[in-house]
Amino acid sequence: MATSARFCASLRRISVPRQVSPSLQRFRPATRVRWATTSASAEGHTPNEKGSEASGPPPPKTIKLTSETYPELQRNSNFAKLTQEHVKHFQELLGSESAVIDGLSRDASEDIESFNSDWMRKYRGQTKLVLKPQSTQDVSSILKYCNEQKLAVVPQGGNTGLVGGSVPVFDEIVINLQRMNKIRSFDEVSGILVADAGVILEVADNYLAEKKHIFPLDLGAKGSCQIGGNVATNAGGLRLLRYGSLHGNVLGIEAVLPDGTIMNDLSTLRKNNTGYDLKQLFIGGEGTIGIITGISIICPRRSEAINVAYFGLESYEQVQKAFIEAKNQLSEILSAFELMDGRSQKIVNTVTGKKFPLEGEYPFYCLIETSGSNADHDSEKLQNFLEHVIESSVVSDGVLAENKTQIQDLWTYREGISECLGHWGGVYKYDLSLPISVLYDLVNDVRDRLTEAGVVGNDDSFPAVDVVGYGHMGDANLHLNVAVRRYDKKVEKLLEPFVYEWVQRHNGSISAEHGLGIAKKAYIGYSRDETMLKLMKQVKDLYDPNGIMNPYKYI
Amino acid sequence: MATSARFCASLRRISVPRQVSPSLQRFRPATRVRWATTSASAEGHTPNEKGSEASGPPPPKTIKLTSETYPELQRNSNFAKLTQEHVKHFQELLGSESAVIDGLSRDASEDIESFNSDWMRKYRGQTKLVLKPQSTQDVSSILKYCNEQKLAVVPQGGNTGLVGGSVPVFDEIVINLQRMNKIRSFDEVSGILVADAGVILEVADNYLAEKKHIFPLDLGAKGSCQIGGNVATNAGGLRLLRYGSLHGNVLGIEAVLPDGTIMNDLSTLRKNNTGYDLKQLFIGGEGTIGIITGISIICPRRSEAINVAYFGLESYEQVQKAFIEAKNQLSEILSAFELMDGRSQKIVNTVTGKKFPLEGEYPFYCLIETSGSNADHDSEKLQNFLEHVIESSVVSDGVLAENKTQIQDLWTYREGISECLGHWGGVYKYDLSLPISVLYDLVNDVRDRLTEAGVVGNDDSFPAVDVVGYGHMGDANLHLNVAVRRYDKKVEKLLEPFVYEWVQRHNGSISAEHGLGIAKKAYIGYSRDETMLKLMKQVKDLYDPNGIMNPYKYI
Repeated sequence: MATSARFCASLRRISVPRQVSPSLQRFRPATRVRWATTSASAEGHTPNEKGSEASGPPPPKTIKLTSETYPELQRNSNFAKLTQEHVKHFQELLGSESAVIDGLSRDASEDIESFNSDWMRKYRGQTKLVLKPQSTQDVSSILKYCNEQKLAVVPQGGNTGLVGGSVPVFDEIVINLQRMNKIRSFDEVSGILVADAGVILEVADNYLAEKKHIFPLDLGAKGSCQIGGNVATNAGGLRLLRYGSLHGNVLGIEAVLPDGTIMNDLSTLRKNNTGYDLKQLFIGGEGTIGIITGISIICPRRSEAINVAYFGLESYEQVQKAFIEAKNQLSEILSAFELMDGRSQKIVNTVTGKKFPLEGEYPFYCLIETSGSNADHDSEKLQNFLEHVIESSVVSDGVLAENKTQIQDLWTYREGISECLGHWGGVYKYDLSLPISVLYDLVNDVRDRLTEAGVVGNDDSFPAVDVVGYGHMGDANLHLNVAVRRYDKKVEKLLEPFVYEWVQRHNGSISAEHGLGIAKKAYIGYSRDETMLKLMKQVKDLYDPNGIMNPYKYI
Repeated sequence: MATSARFCASLRRISVPRQVSPSLQRFRPATRVRWATTSASAEGHTPNEKGSEASGPPPPKTIKLTSETYPELQRNSNFAKLTQEHVKHFQELLGSESAVIDGLSRDASEDIESFNSDWMRKYRGQTKLVLKPQSTQDVSSILKYCNEQKLAVVPQGGNTGLVGGSVPVFDEIVINLQRMNKIRSFDEVSGILVADAGVILEVADNYLAEKKHIFPLDLGAKGSCQIGGNVATNAGGLRLLRYGSLHGNVLGIEAVLPDGTIMNDLSTLRKNNTGYDLKQLFIGGEGTIGIITGISIICPRRSEAINVAYFGLESYEQVQKAFIEAKNQLSEILSAFELMDGRSQKIVNTVTGKKFPLEGEYPFYCLIETSGSNADHDSEKLQNFLEHVIESSVVSDGVLAENKTQIQDLWTYREGISECLGHWGGVYKYDLSLPISVLYDLVNDVRDRLTEAGVVGNDDSFPAVDVVGYGHMGDANLHLNVAVRRYDKKVEKLLEPFVYEWVQRHNGSISAEHGLGIAKKAYIGYSRDETMLKLMKQVKDLYDPNGIMNPYKYI
């Protein structure tokens, strides 16, 4: 009852937009955070001894070439090699000097480096040419020529992906969309936005904020990522629980096919039942069958009231109960239900020195956010919910943010996890979908496995520091992370294929929201059967018979 | 202020599920309502002189064969003709007597008639064989054999479609899914339902009601239509404004391809980024590339509180303002925003003799429904909204339902329109998507056009009675209807291609939610360009090279 009273006492009307401190919430290509995955490339990394507190990124030369990390990949000899004549053609085509970065005929290695490598500094290609079209017609002309000449290409948006999908592997030409950055229209009655693919997500969202709407997608990279890339990778993020996936929200796509055909499916209609919904193939198609040049998307009204609560629970069973109760009682205003295990919160506490939000320690924590149109109503609903879960002992303790600063602060306990995990040098990261009922069992099983093998411990003799789980509980999206002092073959062999087999056994997905790119290409068989793969390859062959679009990746 | 006071005075807490009287809300295959469209087939109808009050449907012999209505269609001679041997094969395959209706070797004309014709009694095929598989494997075996033997087929769900998509044109074998009617699983934590394609929508929704969830789709035919058919036709309906489209809500599909391949894409994951989202092609594919045998779908929590308000407005401009205000103020609880023009309400009044809900008459009426988890909060939001729109003169008058009966009653003014329009004999019906700003202009333009041509009037010498517009304003989905005393070539020539050209000029869709079937096949060029059609045909050819799936329809 004391804790219940605490909830009541601290309850205040909150009516501010959530803005988490930029250092944790956002990342940019030149971020200080080091990520790693368990793919073969991981071992190529030199652990960052100072973790996330280290100085800026190492100089470009330290990024290993993707072709060295994946020696089994060979350049496809069907593709033409770039010549002066090709470059000249593109220069004439695009007119402007700034639209072509030519690494073939002049030394543009500095300029070209950021297009060749990803923000994690994990993948590095060897392109000699970057093209920056300014119109859909430009993209069409480029692709038509590339297809005829058999020049392979990589479409590139904000280059913020996590699986190496947006940088070349060999000498593929980079087609960067950054100059296609116009908002084409917004209808305030229907809430439908039409914009170029190269518009930065945050720019689109800020534009919509002025019109009292929001982009129905939010993610950490919003300051750099582009909406075309978001659609091409079917980004998930923070608002999916509330607003659903891009497959539902994207109403239209304009895309250029490999042969230069412009597919104008840029409908601004909420309902349109006239034939196969082909645009859906481009949502999550990762640029392998065409380049998205424009999108139309339905945008909801911006909520005026935001509330955030953070609480501790004694077991994963209680977490599930709390989730069901939140769905019951918060229903239409629930906008986030995030899970953090006790170990992940302990790590945030250790690395940042920040005090825990709660007094005691618990094996599980949840963060709940509500967004609605009436602050008083939302507070009342949230208070009723909290009283209920406290009184029924589902939740052991909790706090409710009283103001904007507290909201930001609570979010850092969720959003700071990823950065803090890197503190010891590296992280093996898995982005998985699993049935909610078994979601956390995987974390326990992996921890037991690593503990039994003697690779997890408190001093430097152990490669692994800890195994933690957190994620978007509302979407059944688990981030399984293993913080390590160094990348270690033994740890990798314990993790794989164990994790993938576990996911397969429980009908999960090996990539919930990050996509396949090059990192997951080899593992798709754990989530898709032979028939599905055959059908997917059919589609690829249909649209891109020469295979020039983003080769060596995806399926 | 008087009207504002009226709103306040009548405001009561409402906490009941909406259930509109079955005679108006639901239809069944043997409904008494007569519909018609402007396609060539429409002229084949004998007007029902007594309109919707007439006795049951005329005997089957009065339904014109689709092949006569569309004389330009010829049976594809590549298809095999059904033989005794084929029938024997299917009897052995399916085992049970009841699984095969054999019209070839025995007189099953009565039994087979309901599978050959649609509920509108507008389309009639000539099949001699109906198969009722009980498992996905059955469907696979059937299709594999049909594909090898080049026997054309029509997948059939509840046969409640409006465009003739679910009945044969010639002698295609009907594959009816009614025996595949099991709910496979429901996860109360995630809200994900997995069920056979043949489960009736209302059965699924009732099942979910017990679990405090709802199916994220609702439509008039729910008592007869099947969820597989809903997905195959990408049904829209009443809940789309709130819960979004099936492209977002359907998480997985199990389908059988024409060659018998079972495509197992029955994911129960909210997020799964592992390759092209092929299942999307089957959503709205109208059974032309495979047969959906199972679906998995995310179902929201059922709202406990329902409120309905009905009001009159002086202009379409005010309607748009009211819609924007409703989105602003009702935001997360708005579950319907329906538009009815004054003429449509006058017709309901004339045909049913029901008193208008409001005292004065207005050129436009709107019906708003809210659904939320807290009745007090919802009522307060709705009251604030209504006070605002009344005080700012956006809305001229309005009523708010005080109880379940009143909620039902208000809905009949919207849902009764379709039936009442048939009162004089026939209706030319168009299901269109248009930008909201111009949506009602089309109704005015069509009315002017028909009036100028002298075909609309109050006595029997005029073929047309009136031109009305109503629909799902929240989805920009207009139902343009022309009530007629008789189907008339002159009226048809005034309507077409005028309506389609108008829609095309405003980037609308000629089929918002009803699909293409046979009725709209010829008109798809008004909503899709040559490139899109070519790409769609590629997909059809890829999946169904022999063209056996639902031929003569779609694109």
